Amino acid sequence: MTNGRSLLLAYDQGLEHGPTDFNERNSDPSFVVEVANKGGFNGIILQKGIAEKYYDGKIPLIVKLNGKTSLVKGEPVSRQICSVEEAEALGAKAVGYTIYLGSEYEHVMLQEFGKIHEDAHRHGVPVIAWVYPRGIAIKDDTAPEIVAYAARAGLEVGADAVKIKYTGNPETFRWAVRNAGKTKVYMSGGPKAPTEEDFLRQVSGAIQAGAVGLAVGRNVWQAEDPLLISKKLKEIVIEKRQVQAKA
Amino acid sequence: MTNGRSLLLAYDQGLEHGPTDFNERNSDPSFVVEVANKGGFNGIILQKGIAEKYYDGKIPLIVKLNGKTSLVKGEPVSRQICSVEEAEALGAKAVGYTIYLGSEYEHVMLQEFGKIHEDAHRHGVPVIAWVYPRGIAIKDDTAPEIVAYAARAGLEVGADAVKIKYTGNPETFRWAVRNAGKTKVYMSGGPKAPTEEDFLRQVSGAIQAGAVGLAVGRNVWQAEDPLLISKKLKEIVIEKRQVQAKA
Amino acid sequence: MTNGRSLLLAYDQGLEHGPTDFNERNSDPSFVVEVANKGGFNGIILQKGIAEKYYDGKIPLIVKLNGKTSLVKGEPVSRQICSVEEAEALGAKAVGYTIYLGSEYEHVMLQEFGKIHEDAHRHGVPVIAWVYPRGIAIKDDTAPEIVAYAARAGLEVGADAVKIKYTGNPETFRWAVRNAGKTKVYMSGGPKAPTEEDFLRQVSGAIQAGAVGLAVGRNVWQAEDPLLISKKLKEIVIEKRQVQAKA
Amino acid sequence: MTNGRSLLLAYDQGLEHGPTDFNERNSDPSFVVEVANKGGFNGIILQKGIAEKYYDGKIPLIVKLNGKTSLVKGEPVSRQICSVEEAEALGAKAVGYTIYLGSEYEHVMLQEFGKIHEDAHRHGVPVIAWVYPRGIAIKDDTAPEIVAYAARAGLEVGADAVKIKYTGNPETFRWAVRNAGKTKVYMSGGPKAPTEEDFLRQVSGAIQAGAVGLAVGRNVWQAEDPLLISKKLKEIVIEKRQVQAKA
Amino acid sequence: MTNGRSLLLAYDQGLEHGPTDFNERNSDPSFVVEVANKGGFNGIILQKGIAEKYYDGKIPLIVKLNGKTSLVKGEPVSRQICSVEEAEALGAKAVGYTIYLGSEYEHVMLQEFGKIHEDAHRHGVPVIAWVYPRGIAIKDDTAPEIVAYAARAGLEVGADAVKIKYTGNPETFRWAVRNAGKTKVYMSGGPKAPTEEDFLRQVSGAIQAGAVGLAVGRNVWQAEDPLLISKKLKEIVIEKRQVQAKA
Repeated sequence: MTNGRSLLLAYDQGLEHGPTDFNERNSDPSFVVEVANKGGFNGIILQKGIAEKYYDGKIPLIVKLNGKTSLVKGEPVSRQICSVEEAEALGAKAVGYTIYLGSEYEHVMLQEFGKIHEDAHRHGVPVIAWVYPRGIAIKDDTAPEIVAYAARAGLEVGADAVKIKYTGNPETFRWAVRNAGKTKVYMSGGPKAPTEEDFLRQVSGAIQAGAVGLAVGRNVWQAEDPLLISKKLKEIVIEKRQVQAKA
Repeated sequence: MTNGRSLLLAYDQGLEHGPTDFNERNSDPSFVVEVANKGGFNGIILQKGIAEKYYDGKIPLIVKLNGKTSLVKGEPVSRQICSVEEAEALGAKAVGYTIYLGSEYEHVMLQEFGKIHEDAHRHGVPVIAWVYPRGIAIKDDTAPEIVAYAARAGLEVGADAVKIKYTGNPETFRWAVRNAGKTKVYMSGGPKAPTEEDFLRQVSGAIQAGAVGLAVGRNVWQAEDPLLISKKLKEIVIEKRQVQAKA
Repeated sequence: MTNGRSLLLAYDQGLEHGPTDFNERNSDPSFVVEVANKGGFNGIILQKGIAEKYYDGKIPLIVKLNGKTSLVKGEPVSRQICSVEEAEALGAKAVGYTIYLGSEYEHVMLQEFGKIHEDAHRHGVPVIAWVYPRGIAIKDDTAPEIVAYAARAGLEVGADAVKIKYTGNPETFRWAVRNAGKTKVYMSGGPKAPTEEDFLRQVSGAIQAGAVGLAVGRNVWQAEDPLLISKKLKEIVIEKRQVQAKA
Repeated sequence: MTNGRSLLLAYDQGLEHGPTDFNERNSDPSFVVEVANKGGFNGIILQKGIAEKYYDGKIPLIVKLNGKTSLVKGEPVSRQICSVEEAEALGAKAVGYTIYLGSEYEHVMLQEFGKIHEDAHRHGVPVIAWVYPRGIAIKDDTAPEIVAYAARAGLEVGADAVKIKYTGNPETFRWAVRNAGKTKVYMSGGPKAPTEEDFLRQVSGAIQAGAVGLAVGRNVWQAEDPLLISKKLKEIVIEKRQVQAKA
Repeated sequence: MTNGRSLLLAYDQGLEHGPTDFNERNSDPSFVVEVANKGGFNGIILQKGIAEKYYDGKIPLIVKLNGKTSLVKGEPVSRQICSVEEAEALGAKAVGYTIYLGSEYEHVMLQEFGKIHEDAHRHGVPVIAWVYPRGIAIKDDTAPEIVAYAARAGLEVGADAVKIKYTGNPETFRWAVRNAGKTKVYMSGGPKAPTEEDFLRQVSGAIQAGAVGLAVGRNVWQAEDPLLISKKLKEIVIEKRQVQAKA
C-alpha cells in the first residue's frame, strides 16, 4: 500500500452475482489473479474457495468471510462461510465481511461481525467491512446521509476499513469519509460504469474526498484492456492524479 | 464519581442514529473525547470501535456491548457486538447493554443480558442496563408506570445501574428510582432539548428524585459551548444545585 | 420445610408484572425479605438481581432462572437469565423456571428446562417448575384438565416440584396432585384475592387435596398486615388447619 | 428380547397427551411400572422425570429424549429434553426420539436426531426413532406409502429401530418393513382400539409382516386386566401366534 | 477414479424421495451396494444409516451429510445430520452436502457448508457440494445461467466437486463447467429418463462439456439390467465414448 493508499481487485462476484458478470476470459480465476499481479494491485479479494485453488501469494490476499447469491429475494442476509483461522491459513493479510445495514437481519450480521472483529484482532488480522445499506427500509443506497451512516457504522463496530458506495460527488462523499474517522474508506467499484471517463471521475472524486483507495472488480476485469484501466486507476488512487469534472 | 453521583458522556449515537446527529466538529471522536476529559466527566460511553481508536485513558471508559442502527423498522432488537473480555482489554471500567423492554425480541435481549451480567460479575466489571421500553406494545415510553417498570426490570435482572428516560417530573421519577432499589439510576439525556433551561430543569428534577447521575450526549456535544453546559450539569448532578421549575 | 410441607414467599413480580403490583412499602425488597424472615417462611423466591443485592441468608433462597415482562403481547416465552451456577453462588437451595405450556414457544422452554434440570441435578440442586398453560391455544388456564396436564408435565420432565394454579375446588385439584406423582405440588398464590377468607379457603383446599405447600406473593406482601396473614397461612399449610367452605 | 422380538410398554403419554389418557389407577407410574415388570415386557419407555422417580431396574429402560404436549397447535416440533448421558445415568439400555416427518420443523428434528445418534453410538446405546409423519403436508399418516417413507427415513438416518404406525393390513405393512431394511420395526400401539380383538389382529398382522415387536401403552394400561392383555400380546409378538382376519 | 473421471452411484433417495422410487429389489440396500461393487463404480453415495449397516468397503464411500424428505413444502432446507468425524469413522473417502441455492434458507446452508468444508479439509476429506437452485425464486433449475451459477457457487465456497443438473446441451453445460474452474463437475443423474438412449446422450454431452463424471442413481438401479447400463455409462464417462445427438 503506497502512500497509505491502495487499489484492491475484488473477485467474489461469482458468488454474489453469478456468471452473468463473466465472459469466457474473466470467468477463469487464473486470468483475474494474473491481472491483479501484473496490474500492480495492492490486494486481491477472494472467497475461500477461489483463494484455496488459485491464489499464488504474489500480492496480498483479502478473504471475504461471508457471501450470498443474488437469487434469494427479500431482506438480505449473508452469513459467515469462512473462519478467520481458515483465512489466515490461506495466507490472508486481511479479512472482509458484508453488513447489510437496515436489513431485518442487520442484528445477525452486526453480531457476527462483532465476533469476527474480536477473533481477527486477537490474531492481528485487519478487518474490512463492506457496509451496504439494503432492504425494504432503504430507499436510496447512495444517498449522502445513508453512505455516511454506513461509514460511521463501520467505525463504531471496529472495522479497520470500510468499503462503501460512492455518493456521486466529492462534497457529500467527504462527509462520509469524515464520519468514518480513523477507519479507512474504500470506494466500492460497483457495476461497470457507462464510460471509462465516468468511472475514473468517480474514483478521482472519492480519492479527493479522502478515500484511501478503491476496491474494484467489474470495471477492471470486464474492461477490454484490464491492465490499461488498472494503470489509469493507480495514477488516480496512488499518485492522486485528478480527473476533472465534465464541463 | 463524586458523592456517589456521576456525569457520563454518551457518544454511541453514530451507530444508533447515524451522522444526522453530527456536525463537522462533533463528528470527530477526538473532539468529544476531549470534551469528556476537559469537562470533568466521570465516564465516557463508547462502542468498541471508537474506544479502540480514540480512547486515551484519561477518564473511565464504559463500553457499550450491543447496538443497532435506526434504519431497521419493526420490533427493535440489539445484539451483542462486543464481549466483556474485549471491553476489559480496551480499558473499560464498566459495560453497557440496551434492553428494549416490551419488544417481541425482549426475551432475546434479557437472555443475552443475563449472560453478560454473569460474565461481567465474574470479571468484577459493573453492568449498566439501558432499559428502553419500545415496540408496538409500548404506547408512551416516558409514562411513569413504564419508566418505573424499566427501572425495576433493571434491578431484577442484576444491573448495577440503569439508564432510563425522564418521566417529566420529579414526583413520578421518584417512583422509578424507588423501584430500582439498590440499582443506581441514570437519567438518559435524550435528544437536544428545546432550551438549555428546560434541559437543566429536567436533570435537576431527576437528581432531586434520587438519580445518581446523568448520561448525556447530544445536549453536551451539540451545544455551542460544550464545556459551559458540562459545568452547569456538574453543578446540578454533583453539587446538587437545584433548578427551579418555571413559575 | 416442616412435615414435608412448606410456605414460600414469591417476589419476582417486579419483573413479571412491573411496579403496578407495588406500593411505597412493598416496592422495597428489604421490606419483603424481612416479611419472609419474620413470617417464618420456608423459602423466598427471587430473581438473581434482587438476590444479589438483598438476600441475607436467613431463610432458604430459591432463584428464578427465567423471566419476562407483561409488556410483550403474543405467544409467551421466557428464557433463561440466570445459570444454575450463578444461583448456587448466590446461595440458592433450589432453582425455579417457568414453562408456558401450550405456547408456540413451548418447545423452546421445555428444551431449556431439560438442560437446567440436568445441570441442577448434577449440582444436587432441586428444580421447581412453574408450569403455566398459556397462549392462544389455552382457553381456561384453571380448567381441571389443564391444571392436571401442567402438573403431569412437571413430573414427566423431571421437576422436583411444580407450582400450578388452583382449580377452584379440592376435588379437581386432587386429580392434578395425583398426576404430579412424586413431584411435589405448590399452589400458586396468584393475584390478591377479593377477601382474605376466600384466599385462605383456596389454600386450605389445595393442601387438603395433597399440595405440599403454597408459593404466595401478593396476598402476603400486599396485605395490610403481612405477618398476620403469614401466620394464618402457616396454620393452614404447615399445621393443616382446615378452612370450611362457605355455607 | 426373545427370538429377536420384543414387547415394549410405552408410558410417556402424560406429557404427549396429558392426564385425559389416565384414570385413578394408571395415572400412578408405580402401577404401570408394576404392569411392565409382571407382564414380562422386554422394556419400558419413560420420560426422564418418571424414570428418575419410579424406575426400579427390573426390566430394560428406554428413555424418550424429546417430547411435547398436545396443547400447541400448528406444525409439530419436539425438542430434546434429556441428553444421552442423562439417560445412561438413569440406567437406559436404549433411547428414543420422535421425528415429525413432513413438519415444517422436520429439519430441526432430523438434525437433532443426527447428533443424538452420533452421541448414543459413541456410548454404545441403541437409538429408536419414533417416525411420525405429521403436519399440514400430511393428509393420511397411515397411508402405506407414508408409513413406508417413515420406516425408510429411520433407516437412512441411522435408527437402530423405528416405531411406526400400522397401515391397516399386513401386505402394505410388509412394504414398510422391507424399506426399513436392517432397522428393526416396532408397531406403534396407538389409541385404545375399539375392541381387543381388533387390536390383537393388527398386532398379529404387523408381526407377520416382519415387525420385531410392538410398543404399546394405552391398549395395555387402560385395559381392565393389563396382565391378561399383556399375556395375549406376548403370545402374538414373541411366540408369533397368528390372529385370523375377520371372516 | 480412472483418467480423472469417475462414475458414482447415488442411493440416498430413500430419504430424499421415499420408497416410491423403489421396487422389491432395489429397496434393499444390499442389492444396490452389490450393483455398485460389480458395476465397477468409482464410489457409492449413502446416508450414514445405510453406510453403517450395509457398506462393505469394496469401493470408495461418499457419505451424504445432510438430507430432507420430499414431504415438506415451502422453501427447501436441509440440515446436517452426520458429522465429518462420523463419516470418516464409517470409512468415507469424501463427504457430500446439498445447498439449495436461492432458497430463503440459502444462508443457513451456505454457513453450514462453510463449517463442514473447514472441518473436512482439516481432516483431509474432500467435499462434494450438491448445488441445487430451488425455491420460489427459481423458475427453471436447468436454465443454463442457473446451472452455471450453481457450479460457480460451488467453486467460490470451496467445494472440491459439485454435483449439478444437466442443462440439456453440451454448449450451455460447458459454460457451467467453465465457471466451476478447478472444482470438478459431476452431472446429476436425475429422475429416470424416458429412454436409455436419451439418458446416455445427456451423459455423453456432459462429459464432452468437461464434466469429470456422473453421479447416477435411479437410471441405474431402476433399470432392468443395472450392470448393463452401468457398463454403457462407464464407456461414456471413463472411456469417453461419444453418443451422437439424434438426427
